[in-house]
Amino acid sequence: MSSLLIKDVLLKDRIVDVLIRNGRFQDIAPGLEEPEAQVLDGRDKAILPSFINSHTHAAMTLLRGYADDLDLHTWLTQHIWPFEHQLTFNDVYIGAKLACLEMIKTGTTFFCDMYWHMPATLKAVEEMGIRAALSSVFIDFGDPAKAKQFRSRTRKFFRENDRHERIIFCLGPHGIYTVSRDSLVWVSEFAREHDLLIHIHVSETRKEVEDCLQENGLRPVEYLESIGFLGPNVIACHSIWLTEKEMDMLARHGVKVVHNPVSNMKLASGLFPYQDMRKRNICIGLGTDGCSSNNNLDMLQEIKTGALLGKSSTGEPTVFPAQEAWECATINGGEIFGLEAGTIAVGQLADCILVDLDHHTLIPRHDLISNLVYSASSECIDTTICNGRVLMQGRKVPGEEQIIQEIKEWEENLKNRP
Amino acid sequence: MSSLLIKDVLLKDRIVDVLIRNGRFQDIAPGLEEPEAQVLDGRDKAILPSFINSHTHAAMTLLRGYADDLDLHTWLTQHIWPFEHQLTFNDVYIGAKLACLEMIKTGTTFFCDMYWHMPATLKAVEEMGIRAALSSVFIDFGDPAKAKQFRSRTRKFFRENDRHERIIFCLGPHGIYTVSRDSLVWVSEFAREHDLLIHIHVSETRKEVEDCLQENGLRPVEYLESIGFLGPNVIACHSIWLTEKEMDMLARHGVKVVHNPVSNMKLASGLFPYQDMRKRNICIGLGTDGCSSNNNLDMLQEIKTGALLGKSSTGEPTVFPAQEAWECATINGGEIFGLEAGTIAVGQLADCILVDLDHHTLIPRHDLISNLVYSASSECIDTTICNGRVLMQGRKVPGEEQIIQEIKEWEENLKNRP
Repeated sequence: MSSLLIKDVLLKDRIVDVLIRNGRFQDIAPGLEEPEAQVLDGRDKAILPSFINSHTHAAMTLLRGYADDLDLHTWLTQHIWPFEHQLTFNDVYIGAKLACLEMIKTGTTFFCDMYWHMPATLKAVEEMGIRAALSSVFIDFGDPAKAKQFRSRTRKFFRENDRHERIIFCLGPHGIYTVSRDSLVWVSEFAREHDLLIHIHVSETRKEVEDCLQENGLRPVEYLESIGFLGPNVIACHSIWLTEKEMDMLARHGVKVVHNPVSNMKLASGLFPYQDMRKRNICIGLGTDGCSSNNNLDMLQEIKTGALLGKSSTGEPTVFPAQEAWECATINGGEIFGLEAGTIAVGQLADCILVDLDHHTLIPRHDLISNLVYSASSECIDTTICNGRVLMQGRKVPGEEQIIQEIKEWEENLKNRP
Repeated sequence: MSSLLIKDVLLKDRIVDVLIRNGRFQDIAPGLEEPEAQVLDGRDKAILPSFINSHTHAAMTLLRGYADDLDLHTWLTQHIWPFEHQLTFNDVYIGAKLACLEMIKTGTTFFCDMYWHMPATLKAVEEMGIRAALSSVFIDFGDPAKAKQFRSRTRKFFRENDRHERIIFCLGPHGIYTVSRDSLVWVSEFAREHDLLIHIHVSETRKEVEDCLQENGLRPVEYLESIGFLGPNVIACHSIWLTEKEMDMLARHGVKVVHNPVSNMKLASGLFPYQDMRKRNICIGLGTDGCSSNNNLDMLQEIKTGALLGKSSTGEPTVFPAQEAWECATINGGEIFGLEAGTIAVGQLADCILVDLDHHTLIPRHDLISNLVYSASSECIDTTICNGRVLMQGRKVPGEEQIIQEIKEWEENLKNRP
């Protein structure tokens, strides 16, 4: 693999050269030389870790703006599910490519996905050069036939797919209200056996809690603990309607959580207990959720909204300060997925962005992290690098026009589908 | 004044030509000809009204990221006020120019401002080609000497300054806790005499309400009504901590309100009662507030945050739908300031934006307004036009590098100030 040398770039408070070799930061110091390397001019730019989007459904870019401002039940049952029912492998493939393009444009180089036709998303990620943790949705609605089908599909997938340089395969049981107890136990054991992460929606809505109490006499996290599901390999997305006791359980089992502020606000799902999680040292990642409940994949927007919502929902302007919000989208994501990423340091994965310090949202520069969290728009991201490879430079991604064109053709054809 | 012809542009659901003459939309139809006109290619673009930022403090761009994540009292008394105390005419001038640049880049062509050294902001607005409603801050802290000074300054200003093509001069009493009752009455009468708008902060914090109750035995809006202050020329910014009775008063007097969702969240000021205002048909504008509590002037972000907060704060995902949020930032602003702006129609002021329909955040296009509200970033705005003049094209604003350079020099010099 070739090497890359970024010259004269701002890293925190000093100007350095950054040498990348074999997909990792090799050396960081002023005045580096590497005759064979591709050289990037870092002047008037800062280098920062690229973002880790810890929960999304990438191909839902296809549903951007398809159905908004509806109550959750109508939204899901009348619009989203019927639309998704007819999606093909190719639909998911081009939707995921658009998602990857949008992520590269907005400085994200890793996302955790749960969706249908996962091999289509895999193909898109491979081609687009970023990283992902991919899971097929596992939904059986308590139907043993469906459960059997999902299990055999999962076994087959993990027999056929090994570790991949940029992709982590994980398990995606949708939630406690869509997956039977038996299947949750099966998933949990399968994960333990194969050392896999589990990506699941937990306590996103109040209804989920009420239904769980009625069916099991337990709240969702209590229920998951009772079946031996919780562990440090579990990524609990949303995690909104939790009691102190449930948060203690999450902390005790080392469960990671993912906060999705924009989606939670748009669907009026509820308020994430950020402070209560944080004081228990629970690792908190940040995610955009799918494009139909956001409606984009822009982590800078997510970071800002998270920091704002933390304050607004508690009445405390000191809550969820800029630095913490930034960490949720970078280093915490690294911790969740076991990636040596999320900071710019020798030995870490060379996943980073270069931001244009002369962009109008970044001046004056009393505090760069504050500017990035509260002021920046993604236009300030000039360059996106993943695994030591330049995926965007000067805001141009090779092949982007073609991806846009494919989506436009897909949209045109949509009108003619039966 | 020369004319401008935009060819083959999407307006709602049809492709048209748009002819602009003398700063107004002259004709809108397919196949228009105007041999003398400057021609813009509108293909793959949509024309939309540009934004009206109904409450800001433009020159506070200088304080972007200067002090964040603090409680309101510390923030104001330890950071913002001491900083502002030393600002010069030239500081405000370059800060306001940066603000105008940022607004043009993000599709805003009108803002309502309240700040120190207002003539400096006026100079910036004149040069940058956008519109504004400008008011000097009027603060007397109950000190009769200060009050006298402010009144004579106000009289002098309005003697010397007539109507201006792109600028509305208005009055800016800061708030009920910073301006004496006598001065509020004086402002109100002066406004009536000279037919002026009044721009004031109302019930932004709970403390303001408590203090007012203690001092006057009345809540802020009741107090303002009791002194004859309320009227259709009053623009009440923030308007958070209101009772049903106070909202009835606002409605009865035709007072306009401005919602500042990002600032309210960042400072944890409280929750704007959007639904209660709307059901009373109170005209609601949208504003960014100053850069120190946002920290940008990007109306697309404000629109999205407003729509999200409306849902999140009520638990109802149907509240504050995309179209309403869009209108708060466009046509409602026109109504507040008596501008024939906020829609694209023959006879209206030619203030508009052209958005790039191939931008990754705008495809697919199930619903353009939804895409703009929930997905777009300002990068999709290709062209900004104000008063029939092209201020930005292809995202380039003539002279922008120089403005950025001036701010950088100002920042460098800041370190050397006593």
